[in-house]
Amino acid sequence: MSKALSGIRVLGATRMLAGPYVEMLLADMGAEVLHVELPGGGDDSRHFAPLINGEGSCFLASNRNKKSITLNLRTPEGQEIFRDLAKISDIVVENNRPGTMDKWNIGYEHLREINTGIIMTSVSGFGQTGPYSKRPGLDIVAQAMGGMMFMTGEKDGPPVRTGNAMGDFLGGLYATYGTLSALYYREKTGLGQHVDAALLDSIIAVLENVIPNYVGLGRITERMGSRIPGIAPYNCYLAKDGYVAIGVSSNALWKRFVEVLGRPELYDDPKFNSPSKRVENVEEVDSITQNWVAEKNVNDVVELLNEAGVICGPVYSVDQLINDPHVKARNMAPEIEHPIAGKLRVSGITPKLSLTPAGIETPPPSLGQHNEEVYKGLLNFSDERLKLLAERGII
Amino acid sequence: MSKALSGIRVLGATRMLAGPYVEMLLADMGAEVLHVELPGGGDDSRHFAPLINGEGSCFLASNRNKKSITLNLRTPEGQEIFRDLAKISDIVVENNRPGTMDKWNIGYEHLREINTGIIMTSVSGFGQTGPYSKRPGLDIVAQAMGGMMFMTGEKDGPPVRTGNAMGDFLGGLYATYGTLSALYYREKTGLGQHVDAALLDSIIAVLENVIPNYVGLGRITERMGSRIPGIAPYNCYLAKDGYVAIGVSSNALWKRFVEVLGRPELYDDPKFNSPSKRVENVEEVDSITQNWVAEKNVNDVVELLNEAGVICGPVYSVDQLINDPHVKARNMAPEIEHPIAGKLRVSGITPKLSLTPAGIETPPPSLGQHNEEVYKGLLNFSDERLKLLAERGII
Repeated sequence: MSKALSGIRVLGATRMLAGPYVEMLLADMGAEVLHVELPGGGDDSRHFAPLINGEGSCFLASNRNKKSITLNLRTPEGQEIFRDLAKISDIVVENNRPGTMDKWNIGYEHLREINTGIIMTSVSGFGQTGPYSKRPGLDIVAQAMGGMMFMTGEKDGPPVRTGNAMGDFLGGLYATYGTLSALYYREKTGLGQHVDAALLDSIIAVLENVIPNYVGLGRITERMGSRIPGIAPYNCYLAKDGYVAIGVSSNALWKRFVEVLGRPELYDDPKFNSPSKRVENVEEVDSITQNWVAEKNVNDVVELLNEAGVICGPVYSVDQLINDPHVKARNMAPEIEHPIAGKLRVSGITPKLSLTPAGIETPPPSLGQHNEEVYKGLLNFSDERLKLLAERGII
Repeated sequence: MSKALSGIRVLGATRMLAGPYVEMLLADMGAEVLHVELPGGGDDSRHFAPLINGEGSCFLASNRNKKSITLNLRTPEGQEIFRDLAKISDIVVENNRPGTMDKWNIGYEHLREINTGIIMTSVSGFGQTGPYSKRPGLDIVAQAMGGMMFMTGEKDGPPVRTGNAMGDFLGGLYATYGTLSALYYREKTGLGQHVDAALLDSIIAVLENVIPNYVGLGRITERMGSRIPGIAPYNCYLAKDGYVAIGVSSNALWKRFVEVLGRPELYDDPKFNSPSKRVENVEEVDSITQNWVAEKNVNDVVELLNEAGVICGPVYSVDQLINDPHVKARNMAPEIEHPIAGKLRVSGITPKLSLTPAGIETPPPSLGQHNEEVYKGLLNFSDERLKLLAERGII
């Protein structure tokens, strides 16, 4: 069955997370992705702890549906082979330090000369321009400088980074958005272009109304745990066997909520009878809610509130998450079978497309698994040349 | 100058954040976006606190580059007008409760009958299918059930939601990725489809290696503040005038780091001479780092470490962020001028496209600002019909 991006070829000079994630999003939708790795060790994330039967779980999580080829881009011959592959590709993805691709003679200007339709997508910590562009990036620095860490965490505690590498994922998602926009434009005009995504920019892009609130009202958004400024109760509460998240976003829901609590008199109590009153008295609102939750199990809280139409949900750990019936029904923790790591589960695919659903067709490849297929099939290399290139460490 | 999505028309029956954000991403790239709002009050986010000169800052943050039209989709005549607009549109975006569009006779099947190429993109809390699909969604519940809250926060503290509505942004980003993939497929085949994005799915999609680590190793990813499992130091440290984020991701960088600290002997100290040793002794590594940082200002720490090539950055609050020279150079907090709210700044555009750069052409529209332009220009309504529709509360 054909997929949305069937027929598109992607050449990826990436490693670790943000770049490989762009490749994976394109591969999930049906693009043929050639993940270019250094001969010998390959993508660093293959070796990054923790390992599952010797395979880095970071690599296992972000490289399904791809082909792996080895190629040493630090050698002139490797660069020439890369250019030959770029000639027959639609998209090049890379997440090297800005300037590196140019130094290797495979920057956007080099590739455009040989393929005017090529789209090159670069993801980096700080972007291709600006005073910090040459600095190496790390997720924690993007979250810190992008303003997200400052506003995440407990009110009286230190700033907190999200438990996942959110900067890398957002960088990859915005890069993909730009790449697909450029692909549409290329279909109309035949012209490719360079897409410049940055982890730092991507964090700033999701700051919601934080910048206008400061510029328009002088308001600096501070840490406030799981609360938000405009709604109460809206927090995470401790039940007997775990945490539960509850948000009561209107007067109508507040009415249902206090009825479930068996305290209908709170509905029109002047301390609580409007969203702004409840926010003003948030400590009392949270304390009433916490006391009610404390006596129950998470499942009971969720069931009682859902029956009444109040929005809530358990704070899942990963073991609970993958066993939830809805998560199963949406196939959001699908199984993959890897020849060495064995049977695993990974994060599933979103969104769901009705006509061309994305899917997991192949597990993450072993290093250089597709050298023969690609070099012989696409570039017509002889067995002898392949052997020589391997001996010389070029592939 | 033409933009990547120039010529594409988007009809949006959305409100609040996730749906309007999809519209904005398409509008930034040049699509003509008609944001459909309820006559009278319009998009709820127009009234959601805080207000800037009476304009909701959430609305101001997520609706640039769009046109606003009013239309009551609860009336048969409003639905008929919506169908007439869908006939001449490329994409419909909606974030109503699943089932609502069908109830209004403007679901995907209704629209496909009159426009086989239409792409309909739905964003909801739990998606269009599965046992919880009809439940209302909220960002905090997606972050909770998606497994992200469980692993975000201090080790001994409660789970923490990110300070922004990350579920809405991720839901919007994945929806856009699916929409643009479907748009490419439509260019090739003429066929549209339904794109089903969910906040919960989107949080699960960014869990990194959390699911394989559990399934393959029995490891449940726990909260650990700003630390990560594989690297130390990698944390946020308190200087004299604020916090700074530092990540030392290799032995080479560890060498440079301890030289800056004036303690080169730590480089081959058996307690610290490999990444795994440093992780094993993370308390001591963090304490050495914290003690050094504590005596300095943030700027001094950042300058000293950057000179040595060690990856670090300040934990910016919004006021610091918008004044950073790199953020300014990348135009990531651009000014907009709104007729009522005045001069503001908002989050900027990412990624940067070399040939068709996205840009902010118009500020968020007032309610129904483009009724005449759209209803007269696109649907050839007479002045009289417009007047009658307005009197009857249909537009």
